[in-house]
Amino acid sequence: MHVYASFFIRPDLREPLVSAFPNVQFTFAPHDVNEEALAKADVLLTYGEDVTEELLKKAPNIQWIFVASAGVEKLPARTILARDIVVSNVKGIHKKPMAESIIGHILALKRAIPWMYEQKKKGEWSQDVRQDELNGSTALILGPGAIGGEIGRLLQKFDVTTIGCNRSGERAKYMDETITFAQLKDYLPKADIVLSLLPKTPETDRLFSYDYFVCMKETAIFMNFGRSNIVEESVLVGALKEGQIAHVVLDVFDEEPLPKTSELWQLDGVVISPHISSRSSLYVERSLAIFKPSLRRFMQGYRNLENIVDLERGY
Amino acid sequence: MHVYASFFIRPDLREPLVSAFPNVQFTFAPHDVNEEALAKADVLLTYGEDVTEELLKKAPNIQWIFVASAGVEKLPARTILARDIVVSNVKGIHKKPMAESIIGHILALKRAIPWMYEQKKKGEWSQDVRQDELNGSTALILGPGAIGGEIGRLLQKFDVTTIGCNRSGERAKYMDETITFAQLKDYLPKADIVLSLLPKTPETDRLFSYDYFVCMKETAIFMNFGRSNIVEESVLVGALKEGQIAHVVLDVFDEEPLPKTSELWQLDGVVISPHISSRSSLYVERSLAIFKPSLRRFMQGYRNLENIVDLERGY
Repeated sequence: MHVYASFFIRPDLREPLVSAFPNVQFTFAPHDVNEEALAKADVLLTYGEDVTEELLKKAPNIQWIFVASAGVEKLPARTILARDIVVSNVKGIHKKPMAESIIGHILALKRAIPWMYEQKKKGEWSQDVRQDELNGSTALILGPGAIGGEIGRLLQKFDVTTIGCNRSGERAKYMDETITFAQLKDYLPKADIVLSLLPKTPETDRLFSYDYFVCMKETAIFMNFGRSNIVEESVLVGALKEGQIAHVVLDVFDEEPLPKTSELWQLDGVVISPHISSRSSLYVERSLAIFKPSLRRFMQGYRNLENIVDLERGY
Repeated sequence: MHVYASFFIRPDLREPLVSAFPNVQFTFAPHDVNEEALAKADVLLTYGEDVTEELLKKAPNIQWIFVASAGVEKLPARTILARDIVVSNVKGIHKKPMAESIIGHILALKRAIPWMYEQKKKGEWSQDVRQDELNGSTALILGPGAIGGEIGRLLQKFDVTTIGCNRSGERAKYMDETITFAQLKDYLPKADIVLSLLPKTPETDRLFSYDYFVCMKETAIFMNFGRSNIVEESVLVGALKEGQIAHVVLDVFDEEPLPKTSELWQLDGVVISPHISSRSSLYVERSLAIFKPSLRRFMQGYRNLENIVDLERGY
C-alpha cells in the first residue's frame, strides 16, 4: 500500500502517522511532484487544488483521494467517476473553526469592535458609538448542512431565530424553520443576517440578484462563506453603496486572490476574509484524525469511508 | 407619587411610561437639575453618577433610587443606609450585551479578525496568519455571577471548559468547576482566557500581582470587564511586554477616560473597550422594562424589589 501526501505535514504529525501504519509506504511531497512515487500510489492525500487530469494520468493506481478540504468542484469529476476512484473529504473539521469565524464577525460588527480598534490606534477615548445586540435577531442560513447546523446551534444559544434555506425546504437541524429557494424573497425582509454556505451548482448560480438586496433590511449583514457564484460582485457593491444593506462579509471571491482593482477593498462596510475562515492551527492534525481510521478501513477492503463525496451531485 | 428621572429617555419611551402610571408625576431632567421637582421626588431614576451627598440633601423625600447601571460603588452608601433608601439596579440587562462583547472580542482574537481588518485597509490579500480555535480551550471566570454565568453558558456551547472563581468556592451556574481566590495560582496555568468580572472590594484590590501573570500561558488572553482595582496598569503593561501573556482586553481603567499618556494605547496586544461593553441601542428600553413592574410594586407598598442592591456588601 502506497500513500502519497501532496500537502505539508509537520514532522511531529508525520511520525505518529507513519508508525501507526508499518505496512504502508508513505511519500510526503509537499513541494514538487514525485512522479515515481505517484506512479505507485494507491491513496492520494491532498488539499484538492493539485488534482488535475494530468496528475491523475501520472497516478494510474489511485483508488482513493482523501481531500483535506470541503470544496471538490474543481476535481476532474468525469475522470474520477470513470476510473471509479473513491473521494472523501474532511467536511466535519471545518464546522467549528468556520462557525467561530462567522459568529466572531457578526459579534464584532454588532458590538462595534472594529470601531474600538480604530479608536485605539488614534489614541482616542470615546463612547460615542452605536452598539447593537445579536440576541433577538433573525438569521437566514442558505445551505444549512453540517457547517450551517453548527452555526445555527450556536446562534440559537444567543437567542437568534434561525431560518434555514435549501432546495427542498426539508427540515434541517438547528433551524427554527426551513424554507425553499423559491420562498427566499418573502423571508429576506425579516433577516438581520443572511449567510450563504451554498455549494457551487447551476441552481445557486447568481441566485442573489439586485432585487433580493432591495428586499433586505438596511441594517442587514450579508455573509458569503460558501461559493462566490451566488452573487455578482458588481451587484453586491451596488447594493452596499446604495445602502440596501449595511455590511458584507466575504470569505469567497470569483477571483482569488481578490484583484487589487476590486472595489471591495475600498468600500466601507466590507470585511474581507481571504478564504481562511475554516483554517486553523489544528487543521492538519484534525484532518489526519479523520484520515487514519479511514485508511484502516480502506486497507481492510471497505470503500464506504467517512465523508464520501458524491461527485455527481458536486458535494 | 413623584418620579424624577435624571437621564435621557427618548420621547417614544417616555410616553408609554407616563401613560402606564396616570397617578404618578414624572419629571424628566436629563440636562440640568430641577431642584423644585427633586425636593418632592419619592423615586429617583438615575445612571448613578449624579447621586452625591449634595443631591440627596436636595431630595429629602427619596425612598427608592433606581440605578440604570450595575456599578454602585460610588453611591454615598452611609447616607443612603442611614436614610433607609432602597436601591435597586438593572444588572440583569447587562448580561447579554456584555456576554456578546466579551465573546466577540475572544473570537476576533482567536480567528485573526483584527489582522483581516488591517489587510483590507492595506488592500493586501494574504492567507499567511495563524488562526486558533476557541473550542477545546479553558476559561477562568472571576466573579461568576449573573454576567459571568451568561458568558459561561455561551462558552460551554463553544466547547470551552469553564472554571469559576469566587471567595467561597461555592458552585456557580454554568461553571464546570468553581475555585476560591486562594486556589487561583494553581489554576492560572491551565487557562487560555482569564476574565475578571469582580466588583471593587478590599478583597479584590490588586489581586493580580506580577507573579500571577508569570503563571499564565504565554498565549493567554487576560480580560478585565469588572473593576480596574484588581490589577495595577504598570503590572499589566510589564506582563504583556515580557510576553507573559499574549492579549489584554480592558473595559475598565483606574482613570476614565484613559489618559492620553497611558502606555496601553501604544502597546500591541491591547484592546481598549472604553467602558462600553454593556451599552446597547436597547439599553434604556430594557431598563424601563425592569423599572415599570418595580414601580408598580413600590406603589403597592412593597420594598423587596427586583435587583435590590446591598450597599453594605457593595454590590
